[in-house]
Amino acid sequence: MDSKSVVISSSESPFTQAQHFLEHELKAVDQLIHEKLTPKSTIIPKVTHHLMKAGGKRLRSILTLLSAKLCGYENGTRHEELATCVEFIHTATLLHDDVVDGSSHRRGKPTAHTLWGNTTSILVGDFLFSRAFELMVADGSLDVLQTLSTAATKIAQGELLQLELNGNLKATIQDYLEVIRCKTAELFHAAMSLGGIITHRSTAEIEALGKYGSYLGLIFQLVDDVLDYTAASSEFGKTVGGDFYDGKLTLPVILALSKADSLEYAFWQRTLGERTYQEGDLAKALEILNTHAISREVDQYTGLWAQEAQAALSIFPESIERTLLENLVDFLRKRSF
Amino acid sequence: MDSKSVVISSSESPFTQAQHFLEHELKAVDQLIHEKLTPKSTIIPKVTHHLMKAGGKRLRSILTLLSAKLCGYENGTRHEELATCVEFIHTATLLHDDVVDGSSHRRGKPTAHTLWGNTTSILVGDFLFSRAFELMVADGSLDVLQTLSTAATKIAQGELLQLELNGNLKATIQDYLEVIRCKTAELFHAAMSLGGIITHRSTAEIEALGKYGSYLGLIFQLVDDVLDYTAASSEFGKTVGGDFYDGKLTLPVILALSKADSLEYAFWQRTLGERTYQEGDLAKALEILNTHAISREVDQYTGLWAQEAQAALSIFPESIERTLLENLVDFLRKRSF
Repeated sequence: MDSKSVVISSSESPFTQAQHFLEHELKAVDQLIHEKLTPKSTIIPKVTHHLMKAGGKRLRSILTLLSAKLCGYENGTRHEELATCVEFIHTATLLHDDVVDGSSHRRGKPTAHTLWGNTTSILVGDFLFSRAFELMVADGSLDVLQTLSTAATKIAQGELLQLELNGNLKATIQDYLEVIRCKTAELFHAAMSLGGIITHRSTAEIEALGKYGSYLGLIFQLVDDVLDYTAASSEFGKTVGGDFYDGKLTLPVILALSKADSLEYAFWQRTLGERTYQEGDLAKALEILNTHAISREVDQYTGLWAQEAQAALSIFPESIERTLLENLVDFLRKRSF
Repeated sequence: MDSKSVVISSSESPFTQAQHFLEHELKAVDQLIHEKLTPKSTIIPKVTHHLMKAGGKRLRSILTLLSAKLCGYENGTRHEELATCVEFIHTATLLHDDVVDGSSHRRGKPTAHTLWGNTTSILVGDFLFSRAFELMVADGSLDVLQTLSTAATKIAQGELLQLELNGNLKATIQDYLEVIRCKTAELFHAAMSLGGIITHRSTAEIEALGKYGSYLGLIFQLVDDVLDYTAASSEFGKTVGGDFYDGKLTLPVILALSKADSLEYAFWQRTLGERTYQEGDLAKALEILNTHAISREVDQYTGLWAQEAQAALSIFPESIERTLLENLVDFLRKRSF
């Protein structure tokens, strides 16, 4: 089947459209994920199967696959293998994050560390991470290796920076942007760049793909941080209020702090600052965010980033892949889950 | 100074001899360790400085440096940079291990997770690990990358296998050997191979270097596992009995179990199997090991491995590096710390 002839159904979400468009490739990625987890240890497949079954969105895989196809990649499976690497790195960071955050749920299911303990989560994360590098080495491109090893380093730096800012009411917007740039946007950037790298595109084109990825990642994370306060738990899949109870200084709170009167400041100080919580605190936090119309400010940020993401794609000729990528921007910006 | 003219002082331990012989290179490695930990986050240098100051033996660095010099590597710093990568990977696994084991002390100092918490240990470990890969990518050899990414995957597999065997009195000698081959010997193997890789030696020579490394690693780990029962705490640097209280099935215990009468079996079942401990249990465990002369059996294993390690080196012409490597074998085999 000529993929170019696929008709995009307008009744589907852009995300589902992309999944349908990439049906063949995403199946190959799933297959690779299972194949490449050679089970020397019986716990590895159990944990990873749990993670993979938990409805991984495969968002980052989709980016690598679409980016490769946008650049005309056709006769080969490198895009699928590299999408698998990206998925492994992402899953490894999720496993470690859940231990760090002590999260009990992710994607609506109990987290691995709740089921198997911290130790297993740490070690399976290490395994996935090393395995990703082995697969990249097998792919054989130093450019790919550089892109993903840099992303991995940035992710760890971002997580550490976030940890240091926990409970610090003096955290600035710049601090927050640095955290999410490192911990989230960098892997989106890398996932997109890979398509240009394996098709030997120009530096300008690879940078444009990366730029789209970065802005999409920023949007994704900021929306996630807002949903941590506003989402309905059943839809969100994660525990609502997780960031609040962890004392994380996300943008909604940083914006609210800049407008806080002394009573509100005392509330944030007691909760995020000192992590002393009372019943009703999460509802109270949401009420303060609403009072200051924080969501309108957030919309301005994501709106600007959406423009940047779309602009980055404009150097590529129109194609079904470009349309799918364009549609993803607003879809992720306006999601409620 | 012509390093070949260095006289080996016979009053020093082989380990100190190697340190003196490599004084210049080990300083360069220390320098690189500090340089390459670019501090985006203020906690990274704190934790890593603590780890590095804690008197890291730099044993694996020494192997890479000696192996490179044995193969005639001269005009460059790749051996130092790769020794730094090996040190980063090793330190990352130590950080994660200490969280997994809940160890309070390593090398006689409080472990990082005791000082900064599990979360920091996990994330700094991830950072060091990613950074190691970035440095390897900068080095630019896919052979090097393959060697170290495979080693990293095996380490995680070995740790997971060990975790699964915890408390399982049916663990076999083969299980144990598989664990220590993966979790310890593989990185020694890689550290030694690197010297041959960067000097473009033949496959047979690279394999011989790796073989020496593997057997040295097996000796190192088995002796470590014996010392966990027999060492004086002040000398050992780690908490004596750590493995015993973790329920780890190490070779001394596996050998003792094969000779246990029903009373002894009940003792191991209660302690390692069910992890129910009473005062005096560690002393009792040591007494049982002594009754069955376990140390003599262990000596047979390490004796055979020492012969294999020495034999592997025999294809290389005599040199100061070869002598230093040869001397390390018996030194590590007979150490009491």
